[in-house]
Amino acid sequence: MPSPEFKPTPEVLSGDTADIYFVRTIDILRKEKLNPVATMEVFGSRAGILCGIEEVKALLNEVLPKDNREVWALAEGDTISHKEVALRITAPYQSYGVYETSIVGMLSQTSGWATAARECAEAAGDIPLVSFGARHVHPSVAGVMDYAAVVGGCTGCSSIAGARLAGVEASGTIPHALIIVVGDTVEATMLFDKHMPPEVPRVSLVDTFKDEAEESLRVAEALRDKLQSVRLDTPSERGGVTVELVNEVRARLDQAGFGHVKIFVSGGVNPERIAHFLEREAPVDGFGVGSYISGAKPIDFTADLHEIEGKPVAKRGRIPGITPNPRLKRIL
Amino acid sequence: MPSPEFKPTPEVLSGDTADIYFVRTIDILRKEKLNPVATMEVFGSRAGILCGIEEVKALLNEVLPKDNREVWALAEGDTISHKEVALRITAPYQSYGVYETSIVGMLSQTSGWATAARECAEAAGDIPLVSFGARHVHPSVAGVMDYAAVVGGCTGCSSIAGARLAGVEASGTIPHALIIVVGDTVEATMLFDKHMPPEVPRVSLVDTFKDEAEESLRVAEALRDKLQSVRLDTPSERGGVTVELVNEVRARLDQAGFGHVKIFVSGGVNPERIAHFLEREAPVDGFGVGSYISGAKPIDFTADLHEIEGKPVAKRGRIPGITPNPRLKRIL
Amino acid sequence: MPSPEFKPTPEVLSGDTADIYFVRTIDILRKEKLNPVATMEVFGSRAGILCGIEEVKALLNEVLPKDNREVWALAEGDTISHKEVALRITAPYQSYGVYETSIVGMLSQTSGWATAARECAEAAGDIPLVSFGARHVHPSVAGVMDYAAVVGGCTGCSSIAGARLAGVEASGTIPHALIIVVGDTVEATMLFDKHMPPEVPRVSLVDTFKDEAEESLRVAEALRDKLQSVRLDTPSERGGVTVELVNEVRARLDQAGFGHVKIFVSGGVNPERIAHFLEREAPVDGFGVGSYISGAKPIDFTADLHEIEGKPVAKRGRIPGITPNPRLKRIL
Amino acid sequence: MPSPEFKPTPEVLSGDTADIYFVRTIDILRKEKLNPVATMEVFGSRAGILCGIEEVKALLNEVLPKDNREVWALAEGDTISHKEVALRITAPYQSYGVYETSIVGMLSQTSGWATAARECAEAAGDIPLVSFGARHVHPSVAGVMDYAAVVGGCTGCSSIAGARLAGVEASGTIPHALIIVVGDTVEATMLFDKHMPPEVPRVSLVDTFKDEAEESLRVAEALRDKLQSVRLDTPSERGGVTVELVNEVRARLDQAGFGHVKIFVSGGVNPERIAHFLEREAPVDGFGVGSYISGAKPIDFTADLHEIEGKPVAKRGRIPGITPNPRLKRIL
Amino acid sequence: MPSPEFKPTPEVLSGDTADIYFVRTIDILRKEKLNPVATMEVFGSRAGILCGIEEVKALLNEVLPKDNREVWALAEGDTISHKEVALRITAPYQSYGVYETSIVGMLSQTSGWATAARECAEAAGDIPLVSFGARHVHPSVAGVMDYAAVVGGCTGCSSIAGARLAGVEASGTIPHALIIVVGDTVEATMLFDKHMPPEVPRVSLVDTFKDEAEESLRVAEALRDKLQSVRLDTPSERGGVTVELVNEVRARLDQAGFGHVKIFVSGGVNPERIAHFLEREAPVDGFGVGSYISGAKPIDFTADLHEIEGKPVAKRGRIPGITPNPRLKRIL
Amino acid sequence: MPSPEFKPTPEVLSGDTADIYFVRTIDILRKEKLNPVATMEVFGSRAGILCGIEEVKALLNEVLPKDNREVWALAEGDTISHKEVALRITAPYQSYGVYETSIVGMLSQTSGWATAARECAEAAGDIPLVSFGARHVHPSVAGVMDYAAVVGGCTGCSSIAGARLAGVEASGTIPHALIIVVGDTVEATMLFDKHMPPEVPRVSLVDTFKDEAEESLRVAEALRDKLQSVRLDTPSERGGVTVELVNEVRARLDQAGFGHVKIFVSGGVNPERIAHFLEREAPVDGFGVGSYISGAKPIDFTADLHEIEGKPVAKRGRIPGITPNPRLKRIL
Repeated sequence: MPSPEFKPTPEVLSGDTADIYFVRTIDILRKEKLNPVATMEVFGSRAGILCGIEEVKALLNEVLPKDNREVWALAEGDTISHKEVALRITAPYQSYGVYETSIVGMLSQTSGWATAARECAEAAGDIPLVSFGARHVHPSVAGVMDYAAVVGGCTGCSSIAGARLAGVEASGTIPHALIIVVGDTVEATMLFDKHMPPEVPRVSLVDTFKDEAEESLRVAEALRDKLQSVRLDTPSERGGVTVELVNEVRARLDQAGFGHVKIFVSGGVNPERIAHFLEREAPVDGFGVGSYISGAKPIDFTADLHEIEGKPVAKRGRIPGITPNPRLKRIL
Repeated sequence: MPSPEFKPTPEVLSGDTADIYFVRTIDILRKEKLNPVATMEVFGSRAGILCGIEEVKALLNEVLPKDNREVWALAEGDTISHKEVALRITAPYQSYGVYETSIVGMLSQTSGWATAARECAEAAGDIPLVSFGARHVHPSVAGVMDYAAVVGGCTGCSSIAGARLAGVEASGTIPHALIIVVGDTVEATMLFDKHMPPEVPRVSLVDTFKDEAEESLRVAEALRDKLQSVRLDTPSERGGVTVELVNEVRARLDQAGFGHVKIFVSGGVNPERIAHFLEREAPVDGFGVGSYISGAKPIDFTADLHEIEGKPVAKRGRIPGITPNPRLKRIL
Repeated sequence: MPSPEFKPTPEVLSGDTADIYFVRTIDILRKEKLNPVATMEVFGSRAGILCGIEEVKALLNEVLPKDNREVWALAEGDTISHKEVALRITAPYQSYGVYETSIVGMLSQTSGWATAARECAEAAGDIPLVSFGARHVHPSVAGVMDYAAVVGGCTGCSSIAGARLAGVEASGTIPHALIIVVGDTVEATMLFDKHMPPEVPRVSLVDTFKDEAEESLRVAEALRDKLQSVRLDTPSERGGVTVELVNEVRARLDQAGFGHVKIFVSGGVNPERIAHFLEREAPVDGFGVGSYISGAKPIDFTADLHEIEGKPVAKRGRIPGITPNPRLKRIL
Repeated sequence: MPSPEFKPTPEVLSGDTADIYFVRTIDILRKEKLNPVATMEVFGSRAGILCGIEEVKALLNEVLPKDNREVWALAEGDTISHKEVALRITAPYQSYGVYETSIVGMLSQTSGWATAARECAEAAGDIPLVSFGARHVHPSVAGVMDYAAVVGGCTGCSSIAGARLAGVEASGTIPHALIIVVGDTVEATMLFDKHMPPEVPRVSLVDTFKDEAEESLRVAEALRDKLQSVRLDTPSERGGVTVELVNEVRARLDQAGFGHVKIFVSGGVNPERIAHFLEREAPVDGFGVGSYISGAKPIDFTADLHEIEGKPVAKRGRIPGITPNPRLKRIL
Repeated sequence: MPSPEFKPTPEVLSGDTADIYFVRTIDILRKEKLNPVATMEVFGSRAGILCGIEEVKALLNEVLPKDNREVWALAEGDTISHKEVALRITAPYQSYGVYETSIVGMLSQTSGWATAARECAEAAGDIPLVSFGARHVHPSVAGVMDYAAVVGGCTGCSSIAGARLAGVEASGTIPHALIIVVGDTVEATMLFDKHMPPEVPRVSLVDTFKDEAEESLRVAEALRDKLQSVRLDTPSERGGVTVELVNEVRARLDQAGFGHVKIFVSGGVNPERIAHFLEREAPVDGFGVGSYISGAKPIDFTADLHEIEGKPVAKRGRIPGITPNPRLKRIL
Repeated sequence: MPSPEFKPTPEVLSGDTADIYFVRTIDILRKEKLNPVATMEVFGSRAGILCGIEEVKALLNEVLPKDNREVWALAEGDTISHKEVALRITAPYQSYGVYETSIVGMLSQTSGWATAARECAEAAGDIPLVSFGARHVHPSVAGVMDYAAVVGGCTGCSSIAGARLAGVEASGTIPHALIIVVGDTVEATMLFDKHMPPEVPRVSLVDTFKDEAEESLRVAEALRDKLQSVRLDTPSERGGVTVELVNEVRARLDQAGFGHVKIFVSGGVNPERIAHFLEREAPVDGFGVGSYISGAKPIDFTADLHEIEGKPVAKRGRIPGITPNPRLKRIL
């Protein structure tokens, strides 16, 4: 599990990213000099993988009074069940009330991503998974999305920011763009090989100009032992990557003596597709997962006050007082 | 339509939010001194509302050489059809290749949000919609999410950052938290009234402690003419907000002489729910929309090179050369 | 199992409730002096719980010649399978032919009710069930409907006529009407307590004017130890009774020291709803079942002649002769 | 529309058929000397055909004080829409409160039957329908069921009690039982012809022993011009009555010169079946409808107090005060 | 419409292809000297296109006595409706009874094929269709299947026997086998061009070894004006032929100046696929249809006797006597 | 398993039944003097029962050079799995290339029939099945269809040609036609008995003119011990054959002392119907299966070249070289 250094941004600390009614609430309470010690509990709307708790902890550490606070939580990457309390904060309400929006936001979206990644990882078993979805989220969250993907079970990710947060090497192949600029897959792969440091794996993308099986043999003959993998990313206009295509590329590479070259599959990968490949025993050596993770629905988290100055309270529909959860550990 | 000032962040400009293979591609092309003028086209994977193009323009304006660039695009808030080209960049490839990840990311996620907002707005007709979903996305995108919601058709939003980007007033009611801290809905509403400047509308939240119809009458009697609206946000544990509840609260307010008090509905609002309320002629004066917008799937955008130094090219599955789209306007 | 005294009504005995063609048939046979000993078998169109056999027995006892009759049947409350013979009558045909309509009618409708009650009882296990559906059938059958519900497995019923037939105490709470006439739930409950004999349980209905949790606490504080139960009957306009509502009322009563107050649930109760409450472990102490039982489809019974003067006969589609069924017992 | 003489039974008048809590309510109110003029409104849970209002009127006429009562209602056989108020009673509450169970019971079950009959009648257009379901309800309601069927649109019914209430002649054919006792369809039909008065139509049942087409020709040849109809009631064990069977019997009768003999179809008849026969232009001259009507689910009616001594009231979920319905007519 | 010369085979004439019970029937009738003039009517079990009637006519012409026969029928290629009489034979029963099996067999299977072809033709409008399914039926019926396909609406077929029956030129491209034996698509196409007479269209198959777009350009450059079409037959293992593939091949051929080269699509073609291509305006110039036609379910035809020596008869379930059908024309 | 003598027809040998492009291919190869030893593999598109391999072997034996051929195959009646290689031919390509159409055609259609027959046989267990579908295929394949049905598991068939191929006695009952010509079922059955040799079983068809149960008793009384079976073939217009009908006919025959008479069921028989009869324990002694077998979709077989002169080759989508299948046995 990665243990990154999160630091609250000025926008969050200033309340800028908050719902305005929390800013107004704190304003009213200050004017009324009301600052009770309040206990807030936070739970998710469905089962999944918890993520974002490290970032929340970094924020709370900065805003809660050190001598009057108690924070209990589950850990980054823990499974959570439906409506299970994952975080409980006890502190003077004025110190943290304004951050409710940001706290549940951090948890909601990253837990959604981590949960989707976990589903892929469970389908894939031992086969490595790389998060490729940075291109489908806003760049402001590209890093934290890839981080959540690794928390959920990806072995790598493509964005530099995400890889840094997650403590892994960013990974990738050769983009279609380089091949198109250069004009030929083999030539582009050889330029890549010429300029990249030796520790960067040589992974060629083989669906740009020619049939994948034909192109796989061409790049294998050009780079021979230096070629680590070919990536199949056949577009839907050409029928996508099928089990039979993987089988055939594997067979043709083996027949030509390139048994060492691995096959990496991307394009529309999700748990069902992974299971489909595995059930039919397609010889896939790695998957790239894009929008199944990056486009995952957030797990909506909700925050409720359950005690005010030690007295059980709750809004209608909730049960007053602390909700027991022995899995929680004190983190602050 | 808002026309905000977007400014590329250092993380984007540095390539930090890019997929690493684009960084490597530019590195190789520089070493090989390959820098052809390349035309890249960007299109979305499904029909919807285009958003993010203003932010993309701000980025391109900063990175493309002023004397060798041509950028054509649809406008913020335009409808786009399936696979319609929404952006076309012609410039030396080294100047922008590394930003492909960020460009399609900006478009993908914000267009997803704007499209969901448009669906709600079409269902709601003249009835105002406020985006309430900031709490379910990471704070780094809370503002841009609310901005996209307004581009799509919301009349307001709850986050301060989003309201600033979208050029609207942030709006909101009273959170459950204030009522719970104060201990009574009427008392909390009166404190709100006491401290807030007169231009902030008095909207009371009436489902915290008592039956909504009873509480609506209590706050109306306390604030009388100053009360602008009551908000119904009944939790699912109490059956959610039903058409009949709205009708009854309306009738009871009217019978007690509070015909001026409006009814604002939130909680699980989406186009189907809005249509359900409207078909059955429930007297709703405004809706708050949360995760239907904030949790909307991105519209995945794809970028393809279609010309290199004026010569039509394309990868397999795409048609070489410029794709004609007379709707595009030159923006740079 | 209740063993009530049934007595054939003059309308039944006179043939008034018969299909006219049976009256004509007997008329013809008399004129022709045809009165063979005939064996009629009666079976139901689907599996279920047999009811009505006691009432049929009372009728046959009155009309069949004591010295020339043989009646075999299953017992009140027995399960029956698809098309299983549940009653076999052997006697001179003129003595009973005209009662075919009434005999199968008694069995059909009451077996339908009893079967629906049994489905609820199987779902509810040890939790008591009260039949509340008298209001949704014609008063002429309100009693026999409630009787059938008890035969099927209800522990009580609300109609006086039904309770007498079934040999149980009629049960009920306080109707909404009393609360509305009096104007307040607590006050109405206190009047009930003041005037009703001590053996009548104090069960308050808590959804009339205020939120159920709030009202439950109010009546509990007013009656304290004398309060036996609260009944939740939340209308669909307020979302109906949910598992969460039961949990919350339980928790709030317990927190206030009213652990002895039971919770009784009514409104739309059926086997699926009962199972839903039980699977999610809602602390329900009793259910009131209305139209699931009272509106149950009859089990259509059919009567066929299988022997005439000892000779096997049958219409097309049936097998001539006695249908063996070792479960039948001789009752007359 | 029939206008029968209904008379409240002693069981209803005594409160015996009431839910016990109404008896207790009246007891409490008497002891407290509370007898406000109260307005009760009654509405059905779904759209349909109103029935039972004549019987309710007869009851109210007997129990309400003549000088202090006002009753408004829709008429027997009127269509009602979802939750439309069909009956409004204003009178001292003690005079009628105990009859709530019986009033809504009368309306609920008979409206259910009438509505099902109407659905059949709408499907059948001009083709006569006879209610044959007396055998599948308890004899205590066989008459009122057949009455409701005629209110809904049947042209006749088989029970004597129902025919008397509905003001029609009871109708029927020859039962299977007579044919089996006699031993031959032709012989039984001839006995029927011998003994029945001339005004009773000769309708023979032709599926008992032989193929229907063969038997139809046999009885037609025996009775010739005196034969009015044949009834096809083929059991499901022989595939039921099909369109092709009706066509064939018609053709064979016509070819043999019995064009005057009508064809009457029974067995599993419901609106879908009727439509199926009519769409395929099967020459059916009449339908017998059994359990589709007799087993129809009641339309559950609900009674609510809306005014107490002229002051609007209502329980939660309902709107206080009189619900306007210009279709109501004063009946008492 | 083709008008082929059909000639009954010895196997059919000898009764060898008959059900044995017809042979026995004729044997019995001969021994009993029973040879009544009988009228047999033949109808299909569902609507469709009639085929096989020409072959049936050839058979009847040979077996029926010229001076005592009357045959009425619909024409080859006519539409028939559900159970419409399509053929009526009147002749001495011994002369044709044994051929019932063959007669209905000829009609059943060929009408099934013709009907499927018609469905394709209706979907395709003006676009030519070639029947390619000879390979999926037994060679004994390959010709008659292709004939039926042309009767139904195909413009051509691939089998030599079928083309002869249907009076068209057999058509086809180059099989994968030739390309594989030769080792290269371009080379194989050039050999085809070298040896085939000029009137045979040059249609190259472009999915054997390389990407279809690439190969299309290669063969077009080799044969230039002489190339009539390319055929896309992409296997399912490569995603089948997609609309996008057709568009891209069209665009690339056009961009290279080969606008005259047509595109012919095969592989899994059926009415839905044809409609899919046409709705999305894919530039297809011809379709090859295989197992949708060749694997079509027969339309089961039934033969019934309706008159014996002028007297109406029929088995149960059918109506005795001639069934009027003004569309029938006398053919013998 | 039958082992018939198949002999290639002149039409097949001449190439007349081939797709024309194979004829052209051989023409080109001859002119180019290209005649490599080629290996062709043949597999089916879905799992099933292999049939036609004996006929293919007879063809190959005649056309392949005896000194340069190797043919491996599965056996007639073997199960085959999805895409399993069922036949592998190695020989000079010119000797067999033109027969590809006929070879896969023989396998496709007969395997489809055999597979459908197997499904029926598996449902029927020990109960005999007779193929009755000759009347719904073209007479040119009636024999080979019945042969395939026996290969798949039928115990008999009705066509003379099929019985000869399959090495069984043709079986059948009495056609409706004989009964109609004679005018009475009993009379027709007695004529059958009078003229048929004693070894032909007396099976009477009992649904032509009268109710099946009645007619069964009539023929049983007429033929007594000589009656082997009755066949129930009730048309759909009379509801088809139901489980209850079989039970009743069985019961009535037994009650009349005809326990030896068997019941044979036909009309719409398929695996689901067979299972339906067996699950409900209907006393069926044999089934006649018609269009479920005769109308079965072919299993489309595909032929691919995998080696040319010992060198692995394949078209795109297939894997070059011999596909290992240890189940294959050398047959030539």
